[in-house]
Amino acid sequence: MERTKYVLDEKDLPTKWYNIQADLPEPLPPPLHPGTGQPLGPEDLAPLFPMELIKQEMSPERFIEIPEEVLDIYKLWRPTTLFRARRLEKALDTPAKIYYKYEGTSPPGSHKPNTSVPQVYYSMKEGIKRISTETGAGQWGSSLAFAGACFNVDIKVYMVRVSYNQKPYRRVMMQTWGAECVPSPSPDTKAGKSMLERDPDCPGSLGLAISEAVEDAVSRDDTHYSLGSVLNHVLLHQTIVGIEAKAVLEDIGDYPDILVGCVGGGSNFAGLFLPFLKDKIDGKKPDLRVVNVEPASCPTLTRGPYAYDFGDEAGLTPLLKMFTLGHGFIPPPVHAGGLRYHGMAPIICHLLNIGLIEALAIHQLETFEAGITFAKHEGIIAAPETDHAIRVTIIEALKCKETGEKKTILFNCSGHGHFDMSAYEAYLAGKLHDYEYPQEKIEQALKDLPKVPS
Amino acid sequence: MERTKYVLDEKDLPTKWYNIQADLPEPLPPPLHPGTGQPLGPEDLAPLFPMELIKQEMSPERFIEIPEEVLDIYKLWRPTTLFRARRLEKALDTPAKIYYKYEGTSPPGSHKPNTSVPQVYYSMKEGIKRISTETGAGQWGSSLAFAGACFNVDIKVYMVRVSYNQKPYRRVMMQTWGAECVPSPSPDTKAGKSMLERDPDCPGSLGLAISEAVEDAVSRDDTHYSLGSVLNHVLLHQTIVGIEAKAVLEDIGDYPDILVGCVGGGSNFAGLFLPFLKDKIDGKKPDLRVVNVEPASCPTLTRGPYAYDFGDEAGLTPLLKMFTLGHGFIPPPVHAGGLRYHGMAPIICHLLNIGLIEALAIHQLETFEAGITFAKHEGIIAAPETDHAIRVTIIEALKCKETGEKKTILFNCSGHGHFDMSAYEAYLAGKLHDYEYPQEKIEQALKDLPKVPS
Repeated sequence: MERTKYVLDEKDLPTKWYNIQADLPEPLPPPLHPGTGQPLGPEDLAPLFPMELIKQEMSPERFIEIPEEVLDIYKLWRPTTLFRARRLEKALDTPAKIYYKYEGTSPPGSHKPNTSVPQVYYSMKEGIKRISTETGAGQWGSSLAFAGACFNVDIKVYMVRVSYNQKPYRRVMMQTWGAECVPSPSPDTKAGKSMLERDPDCPGSLGLAISEAVEDAVSRDDTHYSLGSVLNHVLLHQTIVGIEAKAVLEDIGDYPDILVGCVGGGSNFAGLFLPFLKDKIDGKKPDLRVVNVEPASCPTLTRGPYAYDFGDEAGLTPLLKMFTLGHGFIPPPVHAGGLRYHGMAPIICHLLNIGLIEALAIHQLETFEAGITFAKHEGIIAAPETDHAIRVTIIEALKCKETGEKKTILFNCSGHGHFDMSAYEAYLAGKLHDYEYPQEKIEQALKDLPKVPS
Repeated sequence: MERTKYVLDEKDLPTKWYNIQADLPEPLPPPLHPGTGQPLGPEDLAPLFPMELIKQEMSPERFIEIPEEVLDIYKLWRPTTLFRARRLEKALDTPAKIYYKYEGTSPPGSHKPNTSVPQVYYSMKEGIKRISTETGAGQWGSSLAFAGACFNVDIKVYMVRVSYNQKPYRRVMMQTWGAECVPSPSPDTKAGKSMLERDPDCPGSLGLAISEAVEDAVSRDDTHYSLGSVLNHVLLHQTIVGIEAKAVLEDIGDYPDILVGCVGGGSNFAGLFLPFLKDKIDGKKPDLRVVNVEPASCPTLTRGPYAYDFGDEAGLTPLLKMFTLGHGFIPPPVHAGGLRYHGMAPIICHLLNIGLIEALAIHQLETFEAGITFAKHEGIIAAPETDHAIRVTIIEALKCKETGEKKTILFNCSGHGHFDMSAYEAYLAGKLHDYEYPQEKIEQALKDLPKVPS
């Protein structure tokens, strides 16, 4: 009987995260203060984050110990399974080997709790009783709610109103874990009140929800703020995905030629590829290909300029050097909610800029088609975000069929689609369309970039 | 670090199902022909089911080989994990050990594909191209749709119209796997058409959907019918759950004192307990308690008479000896859709009747409360059906706290609640109520029981 699942024994659960900052050939451009344009110091972030996370954000250490209490929670679903997609390989009639690391078995159903759990833990250790955050479709909000339940920390989630009304089930999930979830704009903050005065029917935006969550955190001593992607410490926590994958592949004597993942803020894919990328940097695996897949409707890495920009619409956050569609970005009509962000993790942008990784933009219709092929052969109905990685994996496997190459492809199956069935419904009903991001918007974004001292 | 997860290696996936019929102290009362009242022969079932399943339904063999092609599909999610609920134990401050077998990681999210996969396989082997079935909330329909995708067999699901309209996501899941799903009553059958003529706005019922699916199957040579619970072969297929659980517990030197599960048709819990019950029958574990949990609003085992009754509302199916609320049963307003059935698996009824197992009815509000406690400590948001098992597990663990007994409790965590968040929403909003099943309905059911030759 051929083996299809590979998983580390629970006692071999990794006890350290991997920090790529120790191995970068060139250092990351520093984040800048939004007011002064000068490099940010730890004290600038202290009102929002626990000191341990601020240290991790800037740490030069290669490995960072995972606290015992965090491992205890990770064990509820980790180590996760690495699947060999034998049925998909057969259906594609490809000589390629396809593996996927499946993160959808976590309680909230995605990779997100890999970072929400340590984030809540470190704040709790500093005596913090309450954490605020924003969420779009609810994947991050539900993951933070779960972590809050684990450590008995109150969670307040500002959820973009249009999602709050249209996608009630992730909100109910948050409430089930005990979190408070309000539609944004809300009357609970100045930013929210001001917007409601101007437009009582405002549908909200992620940028505004960030403003509300940050205002909430800075205005209360007992409250921190938490972010689910983009930042270095978030990517650090996600490396447990790649460390596990590398360990089981080593056990069976395999190594990927191509790594594939979808990127919105970049954390799920960076979590998978960073531990492998070290081998490319070290010269052990010079031909390793790392393919970042983004929606053509939000082509941050493939068409945005590489420049300092704000992380949020309102311009409250530090300036980060990243590929960006501009902080004034308006989400286009694409159903992969988690991939609709104007920027991208500075680590990913830096690696792309120095040529260590590559990026590709694809349209949504082909991603749903790929997701349905995957569901029929592997069973799992993946999140629409994940379908982007599946599509490019299939493209690469079919290339191998043409050339006869027996490449090993590994992608991150970052989450299930149980809360995204309305997107599949729209696709199956022929109601979705592809959307090309207009060139004039890119040019406008270039003009709107904040000025920074050179 | 304390261990929380136990799982068999993939190569130790059980290769045989366990058939309790080989070990029953008294044989099962036979199913009777609905027309003649005489014991049913294999030929009576041949228009609906493949011969292999008919043989299994009546087999005296203790172990039945699982086909290689079925094992290949099982491996997409099996063996499943046995969890030690350490965080729940701690929260309850109980000396009891709590284990749960988690079936929610299957592609459709429940135990149901353990039987949908072999059922579709055996029909496919007989050259059948198409299978019809009914579904209420959609758990069974989606599991059959998944199995159909695995073996390239067309699936037609008659889904109770009120659920079809109110719970669209499981329907979309079926469509994603390629199944056709129509609201019942439908214009596709005589039974459906006739109902639509009488009442164009008929919301449908499970009984009517069964009638449509059976009519569909008998009227076409290329089509079989499939049932997701109740029958002996269904319980047989589910025993893989208990066989796996027993094997890993043996590895760690533990054995349950109490087994707990929720019962609607009875298949998930029977799948868990039957392999353990053999030890009670054999005298190896005489004190083993097996606790069947049903909703007080549908108290089949605790208040129904033990008598021959039809499996469906319309009286088309064979007569089965079971505890029953009467085939004219109207589903009460309880949110655990999978537990709203008037009858119960004949094997469970027989075992209860001869005193080998016990049954308990509980109200829904306390089950949701238990489900939320479980979600906060173990992460998993379970199906409302499963919450019934969780509630009784907590009751037993708290009894241990009072007495100081270190009992080992094992329950079947039969599925996740991702498609049932509207039930949690209603509970959290205070909109749910408990419902006591009226005594006059039980008396009416007694009067309506079909006459059978003595």
